[in-house]
Amino acid sequence: MAKITKTSPLAPAAFPDLPAIDGARFATVAAGVRYQGRTDVLLAVLDPGTSVAGVFTRSATRAAPVLDCQNKIGGASDGPAAILVNSGNANAFTGHYGQASVAEVTQAVSAATGVAVDRVFTSSTGVIGEPMPHDRIVAQLETLKAGLDRHALEDAARAIMTTDTFPKGASAQVEIDGKTVSISGIAKGSGMVAPDMATMLVYIFTDAQIEQSALQAMLGAQTDRTFNCITVDSDTSTSDTLLLCATGASGVDASGNAAFAEALEGVMLDLAQQVVRDGEGATKFVEIRVTGAASDADAKVHGLAIANSPLVKTAVAGEDPNWGRVVMAIGKSGAAADRDLLSISFGDILVAEKGWVSPDYREEDTAAYMKNQDLVIAVDLGLGDGQSTVWTCDLTHGYIEINADYRS
Amino acid sequence: MAKITKTSPLAPAAFPDLPAIDGARFATVAAGVRYQGRTDVLLAVLDPGTSVAGVFTRSATRAAPVLDCQNKIGGASDGPAAILVNSGNANAFTGHYGQASVAEVTQAVSAATGVAVDRVFTSSTGVIGEPMPHDRIVAQLETLKAGLDRHALEDAARAIMTTDTFPKGASAQVEIDGKTVSISGIAKGSGMVAPDMATMLVYIFTDAQIEQSALQAMLGAQTDRTFNCITVDSDTSTSDTLLLCATGASGVDASGNAAFAEALEGVMLDLAQQVVRDGEGATKFVEIRVTGAASDADAKVHGLAIANSPLVKTAVAGEDPNWGRVVMAIGKSGAAADRDLLSISFGDILVAEKGWVSPDYREEDTAAYMKNQDLVIAVDLGLGDGQSTVWTCDLTHGYIEINADYRS
Repeated sequence: MAKITKTSPLAPAAFPDLPAIDGARFATVAAGVRYQGRTDVLLAVLDPGTSVAGVFTRSATRAAPVLDCQNKIGGASDGPAAILVNSGNANAFTGHYGQASVAEVTQAVSAATGVAVDRVFTSSTGVIGEPMPHDRIVAQLETLKAGLDRHALEDAARAIMTTDTFPKGASAQVEIDGKTVSISGIAKGSGMVAPDMATMLVYIFTDAQIEQSALQAMLGAQTDRTFNCITVDSDTSTSDTLLLCATGASGVDASGNAAFAEALEGVMLDLAQQVVRDGEGATKFVEIRVTGAASDADAKVHGLAIANSPLVKTAVAGEDPNWGRVVMAIGKSGAAADRDLLSISFGDILVAEKGWVSPDYREEDTAAYMKNQDLVIAVDLGLGDGQSTVWTCDLTHGYIEINADYRS
Repeated sequence: MAKITKTSPLAPAAFPDLPAIDGARFATVAAGVRYQGRTDVLLAVLDPGTSVAGVFTRSATRAAPVLDCQNKIGGASDGPAAILVNSGNANAFTGHYGQASVAEVTQAVSAATGVAVDRVFTSSTGVIGEPMPHDRIVAQLETLKAGLDRHALEDAARAIMTTDTFPKGASAQVEIDGKTVSISGIAKGSGMVAPDMATMLVYIFTDAQIEQSALQAMLGAQTDRTFNCITVDSDTSTSDTLLLCATGASGVDASGNAAFAEALEGVMLDLAQQVVRDGEGATKFVEIRVTGAASDADAKVHGLAIANSPLVKTAVAGEDPNWGRVVMAIGKSGAAADRDLLSISFGDILVAEKGWVSPDYREEDTAAYMKNQDLVIAVDLGLGDGQSTVWTCDLTHGYIEINADYRS
């Protein structure tokens, strides 16, 4: 396994105070799935009437728990619901045995909690290709059930960590019709993935009342602007899962409410950016703003080409304002670009324009700017109104250490 | 600039003896474009009747010399031809000034050699965004012309190097109609690109006689199976150029000759693999064989997804038989895959099959295999007859040192 690493230099100062969500309770336990001396299983139980929406990895080699969740999302939402997450074993690429493990766990959760099995969602993250010791999880279900608590969100965030160097949480509250509606979310992830360690898992809870199909539509659109706009290393997990649960306990119908949608997107973006800030080996957080593209889709293609370029990422690590590598990444992205209409800025400093370096450019200015921990690279294509913003981190010796050196 | 690095551990023992090509002469000089104490300009002059074919980067931000070459390829081929290559400055992203530099150089070459300007091809590799000091090149043209020599191919390979740690050459000879036809080629490249240092340039010469359109068609097809099947870091240069020149001096018409086509493809593959073997920081050479895909195109998509995955590449660097990361890369590639039909081998060792680890798999076997310098990762999708082989190297601390540390 990977070395124990220090907390990311980009981590927030502390885990935030997350408001409890009426209708949602949490419990964690140290089941010894793989790790010793830490919690590794989370159970969440959601009151009857909770709508559950989900988005999942598009990988063609998805893990068994993901396939099971996808089958269940969109089903009846009358009774209670449950989510069980374990770290230490991803139950991925485990053949038919993996599906049997999911069945064992979901049936046991159903028996322990009274939640119908088609409302029991599971996620697993950790090593792949090894049989899941599901008995260790099943053996803890009564303990978990007894420990369910509205206020255990930080414990929940810790139990699902693998190579994460800090637990991730975010929240928002909005007033609707004179009542307060709360949103609290947790996440884990530190590479975009390493299938044996760093899958991205996200669970967001709100006491708003929203019908499942509306919740699912909102989640899909907002994921495209948040979790689908981050990248650490361009690799995609076989287990990525995001579940959004609306308990309705506030009695406030937030369907179509713009303030609620904005607050939810803020929580999602906050969690997404925390995943980047915990990127394996990351020392810089980089926002890439693309404007002037032929379309929003083209802008995102350019943004991700820049964000995923090993040469751009190593230049950032080296505090080198190497705008030539940004030009290269735009050129290779496959989306429309005209070399002679392109402009590139680092922070507020215009670096290149009209196919060449800006006449006012002084490298010492950008060299000083690159010493910042949080950086903005802005590209205007000069072609149209398309725009997109994506977030990434640098590529450092730390990434190599975490992913290559752990056996040497 | 990058640190001076030691010769790649994957380098061939020595530069090969390349047969001289009748009708092709070479000269190099130290013009001081950027580097001191080494040659940095190559002039090749080709006898009248030479066919010139070319393939180029598809980057949308192509450098001025590439655009000029593309305009000229396919034109009349009666008179002599010339190629001028400089290292040290890529003349890329230099706006209208860059086009003016190309015009200055090509006209001066034309004046010095008597080659029509529309038969003068140029390439530039080195830093980007800086004005090309073309006067330094123009000032050396008489010296270059006086030094033209049939036997200067190794000098030519050295003059075009940037961050390469060894010069690259390959050759073949075939008997056609009782006569010997020769092919000799040189290349440079060590990242797939770093626009300020490591563009891939390739020049191949043969004394076979082949009409330009046939030569161009053959080159395109063979590039798809050779240079388009290698990757170091997934980044693509704004200057990549491959020129193939058939002087016809042997008097042998090789159009449609299968033995010639095979020999040429062998030279191209040898040069392409040498570029991978000089990959920045490389310590392992990896062949990825994909079979059983729904189509050849799908097989190549899977192969390049595996070859470009930072997590696969770091696992190889760490001598870790991490087949889970191969599963992940296949899953994310976007091409068709069925988790439960997939099989994966490292060398001759079957690692995973039918959606799970092979029952006979013993990790100590693959761990021992991964200590080899040259590795084969074989994937069978179990879906159809599509196949493709691609080549890559590992991702190491050396890559980070070359691309991130050079300013620190």
